[in-house]
Amino acid sequence: MIIPDDARFSDQLAFLLEMDRMKNIYRQTYVLHEERKENDAEHAWHLAMLALVLHEYANEPVDLQKVLATVLIHDVVEIDAGDTYAYDDAGNATKAEREQRAADRLFSLLPPDQGPYLRRLWEEFEAGSTPEARFAAALDRIQPLLLNYTKHGLSWKEHGTRRSQVEGRMQKISEGSEKLGELAHEIIRRATEEGILKNE
Amino acid sequence: MIIPDDARFSDQLAFLLEMDRMKNIYRQTYVLHEERKENDAEHAWHLAMLALVLHEYANEPVDLQKVLATVLIHDVVEIDAGDTYAYDDAGNATKAEREQRAADRLFSLLPPDQGPYLRRLWEEFEAGSTPEARFAAALDRIQPLLLNYTKHGLSWKEHGTRRSQVEGRMQKISEGSEKLGELAHEIIRRATEEGILKNE
Repeated sequence: MIIPDDARFSDQLAFLLEMDRMKNIYRQTYVLHEERKENDAEHAWHLAMLALVLHEYANEPVDLQKVLATVLIHDVVEIDAGDTYAYDDAGNATKAEREQRAADRLFSLLPPDQGPYLRRLWEEFEAGSTPEARFAAALDRIQPLLLNYTKHGLSWKEHGTRRSQVEGRMQKISEGSEKLGELAHEIIRRATEEGILKNE
Repeated sequence: MIIPDDARFSDQLAFLLEMDRMKNIYRQTYVLHEERKENDAEHAWHLAMLALVLHEYANEPVDLQKVLATVLIHDVVEIDAGDTYAYDDAGNATKAEREQRAADRLFSLLPPDQGPYLRRLWEEFEAGSTPEARFAAALDRIQPLLLNYTKHGLSWKEHGTRRSQVEGRMQKISEGSEKLGELAHEIIRRATEEGILKNE
């Protein structure tokens, strides 16, 4: 571990090295061209690419830099709290408390002018309290839908996911972007028609 | 493949799905907590996190949004051109031409108001022609140095990398950030002292 003789710089590097753990947290979604699941670092990068290319479809004007920062950090609490599958009811019951503790630890690794700022972006994301947070949440939900459908529903099949479960998560997409909400609706329609999602 | 009845949106989605291949391009650097190499998507995400936290150390004032966009896309040409190890002389001889062809194909998947903009960011990154490009290049070189050193030089040992080879790449770090250049110098000094880098 590198400890420069500069407390601020040293704290920043410690945080950035701790962030490497995002590469070891696996989600339920598969990457398209390997038979393995996507990790949080790849997922966050992909959302940032979606933000760069699709921000014109946000329902409200957004500050792109803030959207980028939000999607980059939106899952870092999973370093301590783990990934909770969207349709895991038991896991989701304790998720909020586990994630708050994780945020306490992780963001406090940073200097006091940086940690609270990134934590606020994460809190806003969780609450959907800003246009950027709402658009970021839409991206966070459309990306796995795009990958799952393109991968012929492999992850949905593994979990026996039902159309109604996926539809329950779609409201957040339309709240951030009507255009992406329409896309989600179309993907679900086709996935059901093709037998990829169970029609119940 | 989803093809919405909207050519612009359809092109954007095709580009974003093609980007998934970044998750399958493996670099020579290892991730810290698994015995496997880092892929381009994880690397780009990690650079974006470095940009968020360390941009105060850029030698010149930088537009953070532009730095973020640059690091997010800086390696996408490797989808066609592959990753070329920094110390692979034969590979580096043909790298520029392979990457230009890749840029022609990949950025032209996007609508004409978006593809050329991202391509310009990539060209600027390659040329080091803006403050943002120079800072992004510094991040691109300090990140593997940090990981390699923290991982006890595993990748350097595999390749028998010499101190002089690593030092040859350090100039670009100082050009983007004197502070990160000093860190690089210190890492190389310690790595040599500890026998992690061959002292020649």
